[in-house]
Amino acid sequence: MNIDGKPYRTIWVAADGWSVEIIDQTRLPHELAIATLKTLDDAAKAIKTMQVRGAPLIGVTAAYGICLALRADPSDEGLDRAVAHLAKQRPTAVNLRWALEEMRATVRNLPRPARVAAAYERAGEMADADVETNRRIGVHGAKLIEATAQRKRPGEPVNVLTHCNAGWLACVDRGTALSPIYEAHDRGTKLHVWVDETRPRNQGAALTAYELGAHGVPHTIIVDNAGGHLMQQGLVDLGIVGADRVTGNGDAANKIGTYLKALAAKDNRVPFYVALPHSTIDWTLAAGKDIPIEAREPEEVLVMRGRTKDGQVVAVEIAAPGSPARNDAFDVTPARLITGLITERGVCAASSEGLTSLYPERRGSG
Amino acid sequence: MNIDGKPYRTIWVAADGWSVEIIDQTRLPHELAIATLKTLDDAAKAIKTMQVRGAPLIGVTAAYGICLALRADPSDEGLDRAVAHLAKQRPTAVNLRWALEEMRATVRNLPRPARVAAAYERAGEMADADVETNRRIGVHGAKLIEATAQRKRPGEPVNVLTHCNAGWLACVDRGTALSPIYEAHDRGTKLHVWVDETRPRNQGAALTAYELGAHGVPHTIIVDNAGGHLMQQGLVDLGIVGADRVTGNGDAANKIGTYLKALAAKDNRVPFYVALPHSTIDWTLAAGKDIPIEAREPEEVLVMRGRTKDGQVVAVEIAAPGSPARNDAFDVTPARLITGLITERGVCAASSEGLTSLYPERRGSG
Repeated sequence: MNIDGKPYRTIWVAADGWSVEIIDQTRLPHELAIATLKTLDDAAKAIKTMQVRGAPLIGVTAAYGICLALRADPSDEGLDRAVAHLAKQRPTAVNLRWALEEMRATVRNLPRPARVAAAYERAGEMADADVETNRRIGVHGAKLIEATAQRKRPGEPVNVLTHCNAGWLACVDRGTALSPIYEAHDRGTKLHVWVDETRPRNQGAALTAYELGAHGVPHTIIVDNAGGHLMQQGLVDLGIVGADRVTGNGDAANKIGTYLKALAAKDNRVPFYVALPHSTIDWTLAAGKDIPIEAREPEEVLVMRGRTKDGQVVAVEIAAPGSPARNDAFDVTPARLITGLITERGVCAASSEGLTSLYPERRGSG
Repeated sequence: MNIDGKPYRTIWVAADGWSVEIIDQTRLPHELAIATLKTLDDAAKAIKTMQVRGAPLIGVTAAYGICLALRADPSDEGLDRAVAHLAKQRPTAVNLRWALEEMRATVRNLPRPARVAAAYERAGEMADADVETNRRIGVHGAKLIEATAQRKRPGEPVNVLTHCNAGWLACVDRGTALSPIYEAHDRGTKLHVWVDETRPRNQGAALTAYELGAHGVPHTIIVDNAGGHLMQQGLVDLGIVGADRVTGNGDAANKIGTYLKALAAKDNRVPFYVALPHSTIDWTLAAGKDIPIEAREPEEVLVMRGRTKDGQVVAVEIAAPGSPARNDAFDVTPARLITGLITERGVCAASSEGLTSLYPERRGSG
């Protein structure tokens, strides 16, 4: 997508042909900074500290992490070590594990001298495939927005609520939850997005608002507390969020707080969709209760970063000194609260029947 | 309650016998600052800018605002102007209107020279009554916590979730939602409080955590997104919140986000109580949909105050520059999601039958 008219992806191979460049998302929205990854540890740290985040982008970054690791050590042991090291950086997003297994399958039967080139090729394919997958999610999801627009009075925008950032910054490009929004907007559908700020890391206020603003999509930032009230007032037409892992029965782990919005959507008969690529589906888990939920540092709750009037970006303590905090990064929205899953193959019910209707090759897996 | 061993109320008449001192709650938790109110405008500004906040405290501050106004102008016109001016500062909390009508009734039939003294006397009574009312709310509510403690395994604390600040800082003393917690804690019941940070103004992280810490009550700050997940995990035994206005049918307006927690409590069979004094009941409204919801400045969403490492309290922009925000201050939790109302007269169902069983003198009112 464009920033100030210049097209960007979130991750790419640098001009040297091997190091990997990323948009450092911990610096947005106040600064557009590019970071360079040269080693396995750089990639692991980028994932852990959320310089890159979003399930699809975590997967592609891990794939490039394997490339960087193999440059230093193309042995089977080196490969296994790199896979294990990257896999443990974020426990909830299944795309990470999926990408690592893809990379392992790509190189493990190759002679060592061939591994690095094959790894870069496969990582590049995965990045390109992510963009195409998300484009298709956008086409399928845009139909839902356009159908809603048909039911609005002339001139009234379709109001979409989203949580966290499942935009192009969460992927290689286009986004998952935001892809239908970009697609419908680009085709001329009048819409407006309610952006949950998404505490504690504020990916909504910092990243989703930034993305939407850069692309010219009308939007308004709200606190995470507000969505239920807006739905009660009839100000939300549909909810679309991303996911970090969807289990075989259609339960969806996503950023903490998603479950609360899904409850409010159900209570107010607002359709609530989860957008995801196939790599986010965990066919090995029967239900969401089995998804490991990442516990992050309490500091993320207690300290906030922002820009002072004189332009400095500083960290400030926002809570009563000495009070402890707890920081679960995700929650699980049960399938019963999800109107549908938007995938690159179309929209289906959040159920095992729905998922296997779109992915018949996975019938009986898990 | 005590701060560093020294007893405080949130508002009191100064040593000069007429000016009014308050704890400036916009400076907490980083600084305990006392502000002095000398005029009607001082009182109105304190309410508007939330130097004082919390429905009961807003009411008492307004009462003292009338005292200060009458010192300058004890005429009927002066009284009416003061009532009208104070009433418009915060539209949702009905205690404000209640207190102003109490004050008007107290002085309107008195000769002008007698009005100031009568007003101070009545305001003082209201402050004392607030403390006693809250003590009783505590006694009634503590029974609910103690009954829950009976069902826990030995040594396991009762986990109470609360939203915003309905503690002693929201009242003259003791608090509404926190009063049962203080009461049960002081009697030796083992408990632990999940404190919703309560964006955008963070009254939970800044005030509730501060209060509980100062009183030695174990607690943990969580983001507003987290409560549903904690309930799903079985980590919340009951929810207790305050209210800014409860209508005749038991619907409750409270800080934005309360509705989402009530939905999650219902979905997880967690009892969810609203604690309130009689002055929070609006007998003139049949249902919550008629409660006016205050729209506050978008700035409260986009800018956050906190303390830097070197101890300075600064404001920082936390959102994408240029993105607009919307800031509804309250939402309405429908009675169907509320397990019970905790009042100074006992606990009742959130319904017109429940309320009139405790307040039979109001049967047929409204």
